[in-house]
Amino acid sequence: MIPRYSRPEMVAIWSPETKFKIWYEIEAHACDAQADLGVIPRANAEAVWRTKDVEFDVARIDEIEAVTKHDVIAFLTHLAEHIGSDEARFVHQGMTSSDVLDTTLNVQLVRAADILLADMDKVLAALKKRAYEHKDTVRIGRSHGIHAEPTTMGLTFARFYAEMDRNKTRLAAAREEVATGAISGAVGTFANIDPAVEKHVCAQLGLRPEPISTQVIPRDRHAMFFATLGVIASSVENVAIEIRHMQRTEVLEAEEFFSPGQKGSSAMPHKRNPVLTENLTGLARLVRMAVVPAMENVALWHERDISHSSVERGIAPDATITLDFALNRLAGVIEKLVVYPENMLKNMNKFKGLVMSQRVLLALTQAGVSREDAYRLVQRNAMKVWEKGADFKTELLADAEVTAALSPAEIEEKFDLGYHTKHVDTIFARVFGSNPQH
Amino acid sequence: MIPRYSRPEMVAIWSPETKFKIWYEIEAHACDAQADLGVIPRANAEAVWRTKDVEFDVARIDEIEAVTKHDVIAFLTHLAEHIGSDEARFVHQGMTSSDVLDTTLNVQLVRAADILLADMDKVLAALKKRAYEHKDTVRIGRSHGIHAEPTTMGLTFARFYAEMDRNKTRLAAAREEVATGAISGAVGTFANIDPAVEKHVCAQLGLRPEPISTQVIPRDRHAMFFATLGVIASSVENVAIEIRHMQRTEVLEAEEFFSPGQKGSSAMPHKRNPVLTENLTGLARLVRMAVVPAMENVALWHERDISHSSVERGIAPDATITLDFALNRLAGVIEKLVVYPENMLKNMNKFKGLVMSQRVLLALTQAGVSREDAYRLVQRNAMKVWEKGADFKTELLADAEVTAALSPAEIEEKFDLGYHTKHVDTIFARVFGSNPQH
Amino acid sequence: MIPRYSRPEMVAIWSPETKFKIWYEIEAHACDAQADLGVIPRANAEAVWRTKDVEFDVARIDEIEAVTKHDVIAFLTHLAEHIGSDEARFVHQGMTSSDVLDTTLNVQLVRAADILLADMDKVLAALKKRAYEHKDTVRIGRSHGIHAEPTTMGLTFARFYAEMDRNKTRLAAAREEVATGAISGAVGTFANIDPAVEKHVCAQLGLRPEPISTQVIPRDRHAMFFATLGVIASSVENVAIEIRHMQRTEVLEAEEFFSPGQKGSSAMPHKRNPVLTENLTGLARLVRMAVVPAMENVALWHERDISHSSVERGIAPDATITLDFALNRLAGVIEKLVVYPENMLKNMNKFKGLVMSQRVLLALTQAGVSREDAYRLVQRNAMKVWEKGADFKTELLADAEVTAALSPAEIEEKFDLGYHTKHVDTIFARVFGSNPQH
Amino acid sequence: MIPRYSRPEMVAIWSPETKFKIWYEIEAHACDAQADLGVIPRANAEAVWRTKDVEFDVARIDEIEAVTKHDVIAFLTHLAEHIGSDEARFVHQGMTSSDVLDTTLNVQLVRAADILLADMDKVLAALKKRAYEHKDTVRIGRSHGIHAEPTTMGLTFARFYAEMDRNKTRLAAAREEVATGAISGAVGTFANIDPAVEKHVCAQLGLRPEPISTQVIPRDRHAMFFATLGVIASSVENVAIEIRHMQRTEVLEAEEFFSPGQKGSSAMPHKRNPVLTENLTGLARLVRMAVVPAMENVALWHERDISHSSVERGIAPDATITLDFALNRLAGVIEKLVVYPENMLKNMNKFKGLVMSQRVLLALTQAGVSREDAYRLVQRNAMKVWEKGADFKTELLADAEVTAALSPAEIEEKFDLGYHTKHVDTIFARVFGSNPQH
Repeated sequence: MIPRYSRPEMVAIWSPETKFKIWYEIEAHACDAQADLGVIPRANAEAVWRTKDVEFDVARIDEIEAVTKHDVIAFLTHLAEHIGSDEARFVHQGMTSSDVLDTTLNVQLVRAADILLADMDKVLAALKKRAYEHKDTVRIGRSHGIHAEPTTMGLTFARFYAEMDRNKTRLAAAREEVATGAISGAVGTFANIDPAVEKHVCAQLGLRPEPISTQVIPRDRHAMFFATLGVIASSVENVAIEIRHMQRTEVLEAEEFFSPGQKGSSAMPHKRNPVLTENLTGLARLVRMAVVPAMENVALWHERDISHSSVERGIAPDATITLDFALNRLAGVIEKLVVYPENMLKNMNKFKGLVMSQRVLLALTQAGVSREDAYRLVQRNAMKVWEKGADFKTELLADAEVTAALSPAEIEEKFDLGYHTKHVDTIFARVFGSNPQH
Repeated sequence: MIPRYSRPEMVAIWSPETKFKIWYEIEAHACDAQADLGVIPRANAEAVWRTKDVEFDVARIDEIEAVTKHDVIAFLTHLAEHIGSDEARFVHQGMTSSDVLDTTLNVQLVRAADILLADMDKVLAALKKRAYEHKDTVRIGRSHGIHAEPTTMGLTFARFYAEMDRNKTRLAAAREEVATGAISGAVGTFANIDPAVEKHVCAQLGLRPEPISTQVIPRDRHAMFFATLGVIASSVENVAIEIRHMQRTEVLEAEEFFSPGQKGSSAMPHKRNPVLTENLTGLARLVRMAVVPAMENVALWHERDISHSSVERGIAPDATITLDFALNRLAGVIEKLVVYPENMLKNMNKFKGLVMSQRVLLALTQAGVSREDAYRLVQRNAMKVWEKGADFKTELLADAEVTAALSPAEIEEKFDLGYHTKHVDTIFARVFGSNPQH
Repeated sequence: MIPRYSRPEMVAIWSPETKFKIWYEIEAHACDAQADLGVIPRANAEAVWRTKDVEFDVARIDEIEAVTKHDVIAFLTHLAEHIGSDEARFVHQGMTSSDVLDTTLNVQLVRAADILLADMDKVLAALKKRAYEHKDTVRIGRSHGIHAEPTTMGLTFARFYAEMDRNKTRLAAAREEVATGAISGAVGTFANIDPAVEKHVCAQLGLRPEPISTQVIPRDRHAMFFATLGVIASSVENVAIEIRHMQRTEVLEAEEFFSPGQKGSSAMPHKRNPVLTENLTGLARLVRMAVVPAMENVALWHERDISHSSVERGIAPDATITLDFALNRLAGVIEKLVVYPENMLKNMNKFKGLVMSQRVLLALTQAGVSREDAYRLVQRNAMKVWEKGADFKTELLADAEVTAALSPAEIEEKFDLGYHTKHVDTIFARVFGSNPQH
Repeated sequence: MIPRYSRPEMVAIWSPETKFKIWYEIEAHACDAQADLGVIPRANAEAVWRTKDVEFDVARIDEIEAVTKHDVIAFLTHLAEHIGSDEARFVHQGMTSSDVLDTTLNVQLVRAADILLADMDKVLAALKKRAYEHKDTVRIGRSHGIHAEPTTMGLTFARFYAEMDRNKTRLAAAREEVATGAISGAVGTFANIDPAVEKHVCAQLGLRPEPISTQVIPRDRHAMFFATLGVIASSVENVAIEIRHMQRTEVLEAEEFFSPGQKGSSAMPHKRNPVLTENLTGLARLVRMAVVPAMENVALWHERDISHSSVERGIAPDATITLDFALNRLAGVIEKLVVYPENMLKNMNKFKGLVMSQRVLLALTQAGVSREDAYRLVQRNAMKVWEKGADFKTELLADAEVTAALSPAEIEEKFDLGYHTKHVDTIFARVFGSNPQH
């Protein structure tokens, strides 16, 4: 966890305090279920809840763990210090440490997913707003970094919206993947504990019982979860790269918002750096690096080995905290992005009218000119634009061989931007639905 | 693609012949739609279908590409050689190469996914069969590679079943992710082609129109697809590791089936190596390595750059072919796995009765013995087993302090294996449903 | 291996023919050494060499392997078919399959490294040539994609040279890593074969004996080898990204050479796509993906498991073939890169003189103006350039407050490009040495 | 950074205090060099050193950064608060933030490498000690997890020694890779600062000047550094996996030392879990995950983009801290590993004498028996061992067909363990040199 790339709400999920709180709730709910089953006295189950509002003393638990070298035992010892060792004697009965640890991890991942889903809503809202704002802002579409045909800035925002919306669906699925709990004992056989306890605890925590666990909840679920975060991070990078390109000096079609306090803003007005989106590019790499170790965690030995644990102590907080930060930063960047429509037009016309050459070529062919001839005609006029800065349309209108095939009006029409934007509404309807803006 | 780790059906999906066939179908369906719209003459559309049953000459297309340095143009040129250049003049009109390439890739990935889904059915069938066969075959459950409590071999198969079943659900979702096509032109604006063409072509090919594309179909879809393959591969590794452990000389609870022709089988009967599952471990790494580059492919420049293309030429065939092979190999290994129940019992009793020590500890506590005393009692008898090879139950029955708390019958009961298997049916019902075997 | 991204020389290293040839040589040299030791008759050793010039029949060996399911036994059987089973009876004596397989793999990797080192020489030669050619070609240096201060195109080539030169050193070290052989028997104890055999075979093949092997040569060596390829690939990407940026329409400071046959070149002169460097970006990802599985291969079970083998069947040819192709493509791109110095100047002056604002700021401070005032003075003139397209120097010369601190000559001097290039020779000497060009 | 997997010395390298201290030293040394050159007054340079022993106030710097949004400016502002803004006016002159940041990062990496090298010495010392201690402790060598031929525990330790020794060489090389500094200005041209400053600062900090930098030090160096850590981590995993296998209940050839305070030690003596080495397996994954993002960092845009920065804020501390912890944990595990030679013998004889079957097969062949017959003879006796628990040697001695070819003494000799250990000293000499133990 890198403090500067973290937000308190997500960090809190991974604090020792939160962890112990969840441990406590699992143990307390389990006691209730055990009392329902008549396995332990009701009074002992009730005693556990007495400490419901107490914040556990993390330092004290660490102290005990230093001796016992076992975190759950340390916690249970500390719990007994609160509620009395006699009252505590039935706590954790029939359970294994992993029942607590794994169920807790999944509670944390579910909560983290909920924050991330809310983050994505912010990103989506910003993208949608900017998409409609710039629905008809024409800019040149580029393939290979080279001008191709006109598109609109709104379409750019809209495609990021569609992509992030897919990511939201993916994350919702990934959340379901890890929304399971297990209270199934040492090797998952429920030998020492009735499945009813698992059922009760899971229901209280908003989880489903894991249909079949060993000592642990199977790690393919977590692999899928982190893989999904990796895909989302890659989409964050995708938006970031677009903005970085738009802000580069020669393009300057947009700029990250530059707050007044930032040094250098106006003495070097050309030197506004897209540092937020560059940062997002790096953060995407950080999130993505969790994917492979999460997959390496799947193949545990027999009913479990503990190799996954240290990995998860790293990647679970790190990947979720970093992605949460990144999504929020991204939402802010999009909301406040300064867009320069006039520069978009200027760029599009860098080679006057040349981006329309393909349309002219097509028109000539359709007018009956052979492919070879059409190519030759376009070529000789295009080269004048390219080499001498001429205006493509003017040259075409002055080329007798061209005008023999196409009337001036037809030539004019080929330079109509409306030709390129005529289906923008269709696409917007596909992305945002029929009543999109509200 | 490594020939020895590939199966013809999956390889065929990635052959140039298949690719050109799909290209052809896309072009032909697009011509139909264009004719419906009145954009091109019906006769030209019909002309394209004339070559429906012709296998394209890959060498000839390669030859043309060597000159044009453009694969789609090479193909179209060759197509014109078949149907006549005049008839072919409207083929591909308004389309961009990527319309063909990306839609084709997705057709291939969907087909690959269908094969993989069928593969997984084979694995699932084998796992289910073996699970029921060994539902009650007791073996020791192990955490950290160390004996913990008894479980059954059937539960092991059942958990792999549940895991692979989740993978099937994931793959079905990943298949849907890539089941889109795009015929949207140079930068995705439909400037030169009506959306109706896309709709028709996609419907014919079993795809959905991509709601918003650029020159390409967005690569977050493919990232998710390959990430899913990576998770499945990790599950393959999970099963493989289990079997490798079971086969090691000291454990010998199962062996891969050893075919008669294999050298060394009986002159060195101890030397039957789990080479298939070791191989699966390696193949899992090969599949998994596609995940990161697929994610790196997401952030393309503007409306597209072509960096993703070479990556996909590698990983799309390689990952699907390798996983297809791996799943089939896995199904075979599971089906034919030779299981040794008697060795399972022998292993479980390596330290006579010691795996029951925790149960005895719990029983003593429940009988009112203090935690400390219970621990001491179990300890002193356990050490006799550990150090001198004594039998744990016998020692307990002979320990007056123990028998003061627990009757002989109660002690006997702690060594009843039924205690550990009593919920096997419950778990099976959770995994396989109520009417599982048929 | 993707045929279109492969070169015959490297492909040949990984052909079955080459592999069997090396197997043969290992066996033959081992027989010599065994005869020297008196372990086998000299005549049998000599008999093996009789088939020295025979190309082995790969199909026949595959046929035998289909039965024996063991590749080395299949080869030995086929060898016996050539030299007579009686003469062949001592071949492979005391050896284990891995002695042959692992030593062969390392021979192949060493040969691959030698080709890659030669490839890098081509890249280095091209970079050096272009560096000197454009040593003084001024262009704007950019941080964050934003104009910073002037630099030269020569420095760009020179830094890629320095980076690739470091890569050459790294690859030479990686080559040494894998230049070992092992003929140490089933578990590496030389139980059945004298270490002298290993020594002889290695010497004949240009390898060092592996100081301590198990059944296999330790895989940390190979992990380091592929990690090094991954770094080199990342450097290829580094150059590729630079060129892709230079070629984008708005920048146009360089273009990949566009061969006459390529379609679209002149009808759409603006549409020359940097497809080679985009391709290199993708190829870099393909090479890099070998790194993690190569590292996962290190932790084999005990004296070996065979999980590494399938991984290496994939990554060893794929990563070396792809990198070989990439380096050659890169050398060609650099050699033929079309550089546009005039566009470099035009870009630098997009905001007339503004890139010198920092220098002016510094000069004002050094002339005794307070930091705050200096900032204000630069700012008000810079904004005129930024907003109204004024010329920065003109504005400064007309600003009384500025000229109060700096004389016109001093202001002029701040716009001297020589200020920025004065250490270019120093840097070139650091990179290329004192007598660089020949 | 995960607190429980970190050691203070390494953590300290990455503290803000250390970072600011190095920043300070760079600025102070640079001032000295600038004064030597006559660029700034000597008094100002000397003034900077006045605050040499002051610990900087991290909270105050953070406070300033919250406004300026620029960490180096915040630091310089705070520095001026210490030494006076007039005295501080020449600090950082001609430098760019990255000169400070990148040089600092490399100082930190070099220091981290030095700690890691010392760690590796601990691991090496432990391995060597245990290697000599168990040089002749016979155990079965295993391929595929299956018994192969005898080897010794000393050879196992020795091969890990050789591997870690290679890693030390690799890390020393990686340390040299990053032992460079750069004080070359905004785009690396030394426009505003003389190369002599760089030379002086680097010399003071134990670095070499980077031959050619841009705004940043090239990231291929760091990619190589982290790739090397990834290889070392994989070797840590290699040792860990071996120990985990040795400790599993059925093998029990060694155990991690079990400290008295650990719960469960003796009440469940069979339940001593190899948690340290399982943890090392996980930590290896954590270190390894830094490799890919470090490689993705290489291709920065033009003279720099800042995407690498967030990645390095994560991986630089995390990978070095985790590996430092892992190496120390590994050294402890090896030093204190409890080895059970008697269990090694017991395991080797699980199938009485069967591991010698290959030797007998060879002996029969050498005695003139045909391959087929030899195979048949070994097979029929081996199966008695395998199926009925007979003793292989006894069976052979009783088999007339066998004794017709081999005398009883010859048969006896085949079961001599000395045959397998005869080259142990040779191998030790190769690994440890001729005077190894001291």
